[in-house]
Amino acid sequence: MTLKYPNGKAYNKQTLTTARSRHTSNKQRGMTLEEDINTTIKYYREAGRALIHKKPVPIQVVNVNYPSRSRAKITEAYFRQPSTTDYHGIYRGRSIDFEAKETHSKTSFPFKNIHPHQVEHLKSVEAHGGIGCLIIGFDSSQEIYLVPASIFIPKYEDQSQRKSLSIDLVRNEGVFIERSYAPPLKVLEAIDTLYF
Amino acid sequence: MTLKYPNGKAYNKQTLTTARSRHTSNKQRGMTLEEDINTTIKYYREAGRALIHKKPVPIQVVNVNYPSRSRAKITEAYFRQPSTTDYHGIYRGRSIDFEAKETHSKTSFPFKNIHPHQVEHLKSVEAHGGIGCLIIGFDSSQEIYLVPASIFIPKYEDQSQRKSLSIDLVRNEGVFIERSYAPPLKVLEAIDTLYF
Repeated sequence: MTLKYPNGKAYNKQTLTTARSRHTSNKQRGMTLEEDINTTIKYYREAGRALIHKKPVPIQVVNVNYPSRSRAKITEAYFRQPSTTDYHGIYRGRSIDFEAKETHSKTSFPFKNIHPHQVEHLKSVEAHGGIGCLIIGFDSSQEIYLVPASIFIPKYEDQSQRKSLSIDLVRNEGVFIERSYAPPLKVLEAIDTLYF
Repeated sequence: MTLKYPNGKAYNKQTLTTARSRHTSNKQRGMTLEEDINTTIKYYREAGRALIHKKPVPIQVVNVNYPSRSRAKITEAYFRQPSTTDYHGIYRGRSIDFEAKETHSKTSFPFKNIHPHQVEHLKSVEAHGGIGCLIIGFDSSQEIYLVPASIFIPKYEDQSQRKSLSIDLVRNEGVFIERSYAPPLKVLEAIDTLYF
């Protein structure tokens, strides 16, 4: 019997070593936090509490077929690197931008989990008067924190000491995001604590 | 000789009647305004004047191939309806969202050129304290205007009288966007006039 991925593709060690596979693996690992956030922001939109959307994944379309009587079918396209964060919107009149990341690490959040241009983007968000932050989920302990860009970025820019945020720093300087029933994550309460 | 589209596809009356073809046709028609806006927001980002990005086109990915030693190739995907506007960002500390549309009409901007959920989104942007607007380009006269959501939405919601914004209303209630060399469009000057 051949070992297969959920997409039906046979297991192949070679594919595991490509950047795209690593990326996909990260995405799959991040599904729960991402889904919880997506449900949470939908709840906030419907309740009128905040207007936050997840941005579409950037895709470069190369070929499109237009079969008659049916919708256009994209037959060749590639994922592009995101140049901004995944989530953006408005809360209490202020612009808000954040990126959500999960990590398997029990002790820290590795900087390599976030793209340099995403860090640049969060820095610009703060410079323009918006709220920029990270939502970090630790898989092992199931803890989720909101970490403001103002805490994260200086550490990111000086990696001479360490190439990650220690979980202690995240616990001390970030704000713990509580789980709840509806919405699944109390994101706005954490933002209130930090910014209002 | 067969008449062909710029993408090499032969002309076929059937395809013209599908929603997707109409959409593509709009996009191609809108290329110049869109490109000018993209150049303009890039200029603003680099000059640190405003942080505005174009959102990626939402695409539903159905199938992906992972050829070894090369990046993932999407082999089946479809365009989705955008649920928000094309452009969003921060200017002078405020959240800004807008949609850019061109029209061939010499006398009006037809409401059918904008999706109902985009109108809903602009309404929410204003309700949450952001700046929501339309940038309307009239192809024939090469005039471009910024029209605030607060002007546009009441007319959109009451289409008993007419199903478009007359060019006179756009000229009177909107703000003319001047062309320039760098950036190609003076978008922020128009926003200053209306909102600051």
